[in-house]
Amino acid sequence: MSCRVAILGASGYTGSELLRCLLLRRAIAGDVELKALTSSSRAGRHLGSLLPQFAGADLPVLSLWEEVDWKEVDVAFCALPHGTTQEVIAKLWRHERLRIIDLSADFRLRDLALYERWYGKAHAAPELQGEACYGLSEWHGKGIAKSRLIANPGCYATACQLALLPVAERVDLETVFLSAASGASGAGRSLREDLLYCELNENFRPYATSGHRHVAEIEQGLCWRLGVAKVSPVSFVPHLLPLDRGIMVSMSARMRRGEGVSDLREAMAEAYAESIFVDVLDEGDVPSLKRVRGTNRCLLSVCADRREGWVVVFSAIDNLVKGASGQALQNMNLLLGLEEGTGLGGGAFLP
Amino acid sequence: MSCRVAILGASGYTGSELLRCLLLRRAIAGDVELKALTSSSRAGRHLGSLLPQFAGADLPVLSLWEEVDWKEVDVAFCALPHGTTQEVIAKLWRHERLRIIDLSADFRLRDLALYERWYGKAHAAPELQGEACYGLSEWHGKGIAKSRLIANPGCYATACQLALLPVAERVDLETVFLSAASGASGAGRSLREDLLYCELNENFRPYATSGHRHVAEIEQGLCWRLGVAKVSPVSFVPHLLPLDRGIMVSMSARMRRGEGVSDLREAMAEAYAESIFVDVLDEGDVPSLKRVRGTNRCLLSVCADRREGWVVVFSAIDNLVKGASGQALQNMNLLLGLEEGTGLGGGAFLP
Amino acid sequence: MSCRVAILGASGYTGSELLRCLLLRRAIAGDVELKALTSSSRAGRHLGSLLPQFAGADLPVLSLWEEVDWKEVDVAFCALPHGTTQEVIAKLWRHERLRIIDLSADFRLRDLALYERWYGKAHAAPELQGEACYGLSEWHGKGIAKSRLIANPGCYATACQLALLPVAERVDLETVFLSAASGASGAGRSLREDLLYCELNENFRPYATSGHRHVAEIEQGLCWRLGVAKVSPVSFVPHLLPLDRGIMVSMSARMRRGEGVSDLREAMAEAYAESIFVDVLDEGDVPSLKRVRGTNRCLLSVCADRREGWVVVFSAIDNLVKGASGQALQNMNLLLGLEEGTGLGGGAFLP
Amino acid sequence: MSCRVAILGASGYTGSELLRCLLLRRAIAGDVELKALTSSSRAGRHLGSLLPQFAGADLPVLSLWEEVDWKEVDVAFCALPHGTTQEVIAKLWRHERLRIIDLSADFRLRDLALYERWYGKAHAAPELQGEACYGLSEWHGKGIAKSRLIANPGCYATACQLALLPVAERVDLETVFLSAASGASGAGRSLREDLLYCELNENFRPYATSGHRHVAEIEQGLCWRLGVAKVSPVSFVPHLLPLDRGIMVSMSARMRRGEGVSDLREAMAEAYAESIFVDVLDEGDVPSLKRVRGTNRCLLSVCADRREGWVVVFSAIDNLVKGASGQALQNMNLLLGLEEGTGLGGGAFLP
Repeated sequence: MSCRVAILGASGYTGSELLRCLLLRRAIAGDVELKALTSSSRAGRHLGSLLPQFAGADLPVLSLWEEVDWKEVDVAFCALPHGTTQEVIAKLWRHERLRIIDLSADFRLRDLALYERWYGKAHAAPELQGEACYGLSEWHGKGIAKSRLIANPGCYATACQLALLPVAERVDLETVFLSAASGASGAGRSLREDLLYCELNENFRPYATSGHRHVAEIEQGLCWRLGVAKVSPVSFVPHLLPLDRGIMVSMSARMRRGEGVSDLREAMAEAYAESIFVDVLDEGDVPSLKRVRGTNRCLLSVCADRREGWVVVFSAIDNLVKGASGQALQNMNLLLGLEEGTGLGGGAFLP
Repeated sequence: MSCRVAILGASGYTGSELLRCLLLRRAIAGDVELKALTSSSRAGRHLGSLLPQFAGADLPVLSLWEEVDWKEVDVAFCALPHGTTQEVIAKLWRHERLRIIDLSADFRLRDLALYERWYGKAHAAPELQGEACYGLSEWHGKGIAKSRLIANPGCYATACQLALLPVAERVDLETVFLSAASGASGAGRSLREDLLYCELNENFRPYATSGHRHVAEIEQGLCWRLGVAKVSPVSFVPHLLPLDRGIMVSMSARMRRGEGVSDLREAMAEAYAESIFVDVLDEGDVPSLKRVRGTNRCLLSVCADRREGWVVVFSAIDNLVKGASGQALQNMNLLLGLEEGTGLGGGAFLP
Repeated sequence: MSCRVAILGASGYTGSELLRCLLLRRAIAGDVELKALTSSSRAGRHLGSLLPQFAGADLPVLSLWEEVDWKEVDVAFCALPHGTTQEVIAKLWRHERLRIIDLSADFRLRDLALYERWYGKAHAAPELQGEACYGLSEWHGKGIAKSRLIANPGCYATACQLALLPVAERVDLETVFLSAASGASGAGRSLREDLLYCELNENFRPYATSGHRHVAEIEQGLCWRLGVAKVSPVSFVPHLLPLDRGIMVSMSARMRRGEGVSDLREAMAEAYAESIFVDVLDEGDVPSLKRVRGTNRCLLSVCADRREGWVVVFSAIDNLVKGASGQALQNMNLLLGLEEGTGLGGGAFLP
Repeated sequence: MSCRVAILGASGYTGSELLRCLLLRRAIAGDVELKALTSSSRAGRHLGSLLPQFAGADLPVLSLWEEVDWKEVDVAFCALPHGTTQEVIAKLWRHERLRIIDLSADFRLRDLALYERWYGKAHAAPELQGEACYGLSEWHGKGIAKSRLIANPGCYATACQLALLPVAERVDLETVFLSAASGASGAGRSLREDLLYCELNENFRPYATSGHRHVAEIEQGLCWRLGVAKVSPVSFVPHLLPLDRGIMVSMSARMRRGEGVSDLREAMAEAYAESIFVDVLDEGDVPSLKRVRGTNRCLLSVCADRREGWVVVFSAIDNLVKGASGQALQNMNLLLGLEEGTGLGGGAFLP
């Protein structure tokens, strides 16, 4: 039986990557049906007229989300801008059989005050926040399966938490430093001068040094993992890479007394022993972004530091796939009770 | 029923892209079985130890091609270097049920003297040349279906012929100029100084100006199309682009008296009316490499020239997919009598 | 004695490249003095606050052009947007000792009707058009030396004319096809979605296929060169490259009866025998963009075509230097009676 | 009076960048004279036949270093591969007026045992090691001025030490983590498969995680700065960027009790108050690689960490200029008693 899906907001990089993955799955496995694509400003047009890579694809015409027959939809993916999703989901909520996977940040932070602090506005659907399950698939699979609303994690938050959660108890959190680098698609299709080709190309720079929103997700994840209400502030420095897609996190931390590099590697391997998308690399092997490009995989590597008692951990994902649309599909599989990897079997796009 | 395949030479860019496509198909559609991967120098190892993107993949161990049980194989893909394939295929020929798709140039030129001239050595399996069907899928589908040996076309030759064959009778061939540009993967994984990152990056240059081997294929295709023994020399200038994959051909030609741009566009549309992978774009639309990246598609555009009576045609493909491995899989579908597009439904990888 | 200069509009890519070249010259040769930098919207600020590469540089504060003491300025460079320069220059004209080098397109076309057709508006300073000398340095050096107003050529127009003018009498103009490719800086620092990093990176595409404004300059140049009032329309197809800077023109043409490839190469070598920035490469050598990156040079190559009687010519420049700011400085040298190459001796920035 | 220089080994990226800078200086300032370019394997040829960007340049023919008339040379730059320089310099040593600037690693480590450990071979000129002055210009200017032999620092070692030395006493060294990223030219023009365009492009990866040779220089620098014989091991993780040139170091450290972010920023500003090439950015400003591309500058930024008591420092240089050839020229100025910045006034090459 095929799953009937809708995408709200398909013209951004995240939405179009989701659509690409769904079309591939429809073409090859045939178990998804695309019922609706919505757009508030382009209703009535074919998506292919906006994004020529979809010209000729058999797609529903863009419609207003208010006009969709939601009884015909099993899963709705929200790929709308941050802050605009809450009101839409609040209105969709009465369709009780509808499952919603939100790729925006709107339902990621359980603490509404925290949301307000990081996103600069009050939450517009506070009563639904408690319904949302944070969709880090490898860690919240059971919750995801039972939820009507999945808050798909942020891209950096995914790469960082997959590295950090399995070893959180084994390192001094205060010493954790997360140096991360992301491809340009992480910033979305925004008309900003600093995203022009000539500004980014042949360039590399840190940004958001005063605090990136994804640290709130990471700290929330650490609290959950450690069963505490508060953790010391996470130090996270993102950089912008001159490439399309991929996130690399290079983490430094001091291990707790008695822990060694191989202990951490084993803990990590154990944590992901059942995970088909997360691989803990052998000693001496390190990830590269091209090894995960176009895939839903996360590659982790635990390395000795030159400083006795410290460790370096690398974590690599494709920000548009495992960091967004691929994980959304993985979550769809989880909430439908399908094999976690259904339709996500693609290998790295290399070169 | 699944098709049992082998790949001879899987460690180059073409071979690994073929493997990626096959693994995706196996994972999602489940109708292919990977029986053997061969390597003359690395037999006994797992391909993942050479190409880390395949680490962990369920693959047969690399073996010598002489050790493969060829009775268990339906289709063999040869992704060996030019000039080394002929002898291997000559030895495989006794396995009469085996179908062979050769991605090298070894069987592309029917005229053995022509082969010798362009490739600098005598053909090592001249008796088999007559058995080979040139595998330009859209034009030789019937022949492909009946052949035991398919000579998969060159990447430039594919992009050029798809543009040129439908209009060959409508232009003065002597005036045809093919300005082409290819991504770096077209040169393969060769240890050449001019392929180092710092040499290619931020660079663009013509090469092979004294004659590229693919013109022999193009001229052969024109002879076939026009039913003549000889055509005037084709003018073709390739350039090297600072990107991974994609070929763009920009062709200029004078139309024969009485022909107009819309006539050519219609002729092209008619030629590919049944083709699921070749699209003739609407007037005013032009292709870009990212619209075909990762796909088996060819985008064609016919444009008016500022010169009365002349035309400009653009043709865009992904050199590793439609220009190599994707077309090989399309040909496999054709020779097995499957739907031409089986397992090749992926949309453009963008961004 | 040092030359006192002003730049009108220094925040675009062309203006900032001009400033970079001038600062280098000031630092090393010490023969230029920077009197004013103007900006209509940012007057009062330091350019370094807009363009951090100039933070700390010893620069005049941005001012309104109306406030500049023009008596203190010898040469004004106008790097304002197309269409906005005419009125400014009309007002500056009363400063009779002031020499003006306009990097916009505003004074390039002598035929006012032609200007109106290509730029979509009437010329705002028609009486000055006759005063302007087209600043293709190698061909109009004498005129430049005597003019108060230099219309600096377009980037494509420079690369094309340097290739075409020396052989214009030796080829059938109707057969000339100019396939050109430019780096992204050619489009300027414009907030356009198609100039975002993820749109351009790993991409290549033709554009402006219905006619690019620079063809008007090329046709005007051919008319001048051939002493005719009209030439057949020039066929010119630009493409956008995934790199910062550089233009490559690949030109195909049929030679006139009696002409050979070596005749054309010799004609070209002779035309540029005295030119220090234009090099005609030896037979068999072809240019690449990195060989001219950051330089004021043009590399030309004349190659045999596979078609008897036809020729292929390549022309490579850095669009921001020889195609804009470098040529502007070369023109400044010419109009001041200095050595043409003063301050422009930099070699290719490679890698 | 002009300085007469020779370059030993001009065909690598470092050597050719040095030559480019020297030619620019010769062309514009006229105070250097190029007496010899040596090559052991290509003697007798013109460098332009190997590196076409130098075709046409007025250069001495490549010669064997043994054939150079060293009495005619004031300064010799050695841009030979690591490990091959020691013997050459030992033989040049008898020319007592000759000053030598070695861009290889051969004389950087004062401790010969350390050299042997990191470079895997005994030092071939141990008696000269004591003569060498480590050429980090901003910190060893006086020593450089008096030395006959300058060991030009490694690229990473330059970027790291410029960030670390001024604050070494103010942070807990054990907590220092140096996450660095370099463009591909840092690896030189080596025929390695992992340096091919398709391997590096659209990719990003850590490497040398078990220890990079430049940490030995950094630790040596810290010992010197702190006046101790030994420091705790430095943790340094380099990554490879898909771009030509540039190094960014992102450093995390815990400040010593009583120190604050502004204290460190002030200490840094004070340390470089007299330096014309090192800029400490204002609070809130961070460097990018394009702001230093093509320049001899180092941009430093001191930022608050989200963790109370910790700090993040960024350091950006162009690895080929300040990280190699530019610093070599700065050192030449120092040892000749010229203004430190002579001939090095170029601004950032952007775009």
